[in-house]
Amino acid sequence: MAHISTQADLPGIRSLFTFRPETAKPMQELAHVLLHSDSTLTPGEREIIATFVSSRNECVFCTLSHAAAARAHLKDDASIVDDVLQSGSSALLSDKLKALLIIAGKVQKGGRIVTDEDVAAAKNLGATDMEIHDTVLIAAAFSMFNRYVDGLASFTPQNPSDYVEMGEKMALMGYFSPSK
Amino acid sequence: MAHISTQADLPGIRSLFTFRPETAKPMQELAHVLLHSDSTLTPGEREIIATFVSSRNECVFCTLSHAAAARAHLKDDASIVDDVLQSGSSALLSDKLKALLIIAGKVQKGGRIVTDEDVAAAKNLGATDMEIHDTVLIAAAFSMFNRYVDGLASFTPQNPSDYVEMGEKMALMGYFSPSK
Repeated sequence: MAHISTQADLPGIRSLFTFRPETAKPMQELAHVLLHSDSTLTPGEREIIATFVSSRNECVFCTLSHAAAARAHLKDDASIVDDVLQSGSSALLSDKLKALLIIAGKVQKGGRIVTDEDVAAAKNLGATDMEIHDTVLIAAAFSMFNRYVDGLASFTPQNPSDYVEMGEKMALMGYFSPSK
Repeated sequence: MAHISTQADLPGIRSLFTFRPETAKPMQELAHVLLHSDSTLTPGEREIIATFVSSRNECVFCTLSHAAAARAHLKDDASIVDDVLQSGSSALLSDKLKALLIIAGKVQKGGRIVTDEDVAAAKNLGATDMEIHDTVLIAAAFSMFNRYVDGLASFTPQNPSDYVEMGEKMALMGYFSPSK
């Protein structure tokens, strides 16, 4: 049961967004800009970063929902998501995204351990300053979302099949709530 | 030097906000709602939570700037800030805030380690569901801000005196940028 009185039939972060709409609005906007708005990283690549960080933080709700969104984006290449969940990378990823995932994995542990060499390696493989910025901020933002969902013990469906439709909607619509 | 090309004369998160205004807007709004808008937790109490989490994450920019904001709010009780930075608590804090800081300290490490007992202890000392929600989200949000600032190695002045005026402005104005 959640640590606070939330609407029981809403899963994960949705119950928290309903509890506190004033903080939901900027959090949804941040997720939308980072994961769904125009970027030289594809939506699938950005959902992989979000899934990877959520998995490292052992946040079941965020891992399963963003894995489902990543699979919806990647379609025939959805096995990449399983590879990343199992080993933190995939032979099917571009070398640039592999380097960005190394940076994201360090940010998940703590911002101070990202090195000049980590960033230089990503830049040598074609990553732009904006892509490095967004990778760091996606990893940082999911360090927030994961702690928010689990720190309040929000309701977490356990079966991956419960997340398929949710992931398809996230991939299609992004992260603003339907009422906005 | 920062990992990406930011405006060199702006410190910490300000240089990142200028680099990417689209993500700056929701991040500033989130900080403003959590730390500056109406709440049954005083602004000084909320800045203490932000300072405590930033200190645990060893984010010098966020620790020194929010410590300065907390001191500006607390005025004659500013020694509380030094106590919290040294030991994670202060004899001058209310029992309720001591219990909320224990929750914030757990969220800093990971959301999953917050227990029912931690939350019950805070509720028994008068904490409301909204205060528990906001404590968890402040701790989660600074787990993001800290990683963002340090993951991109943004410019961090080292002298606490460099932060006094910044902290006074934050305490007075909140977190929307002056142009908004």
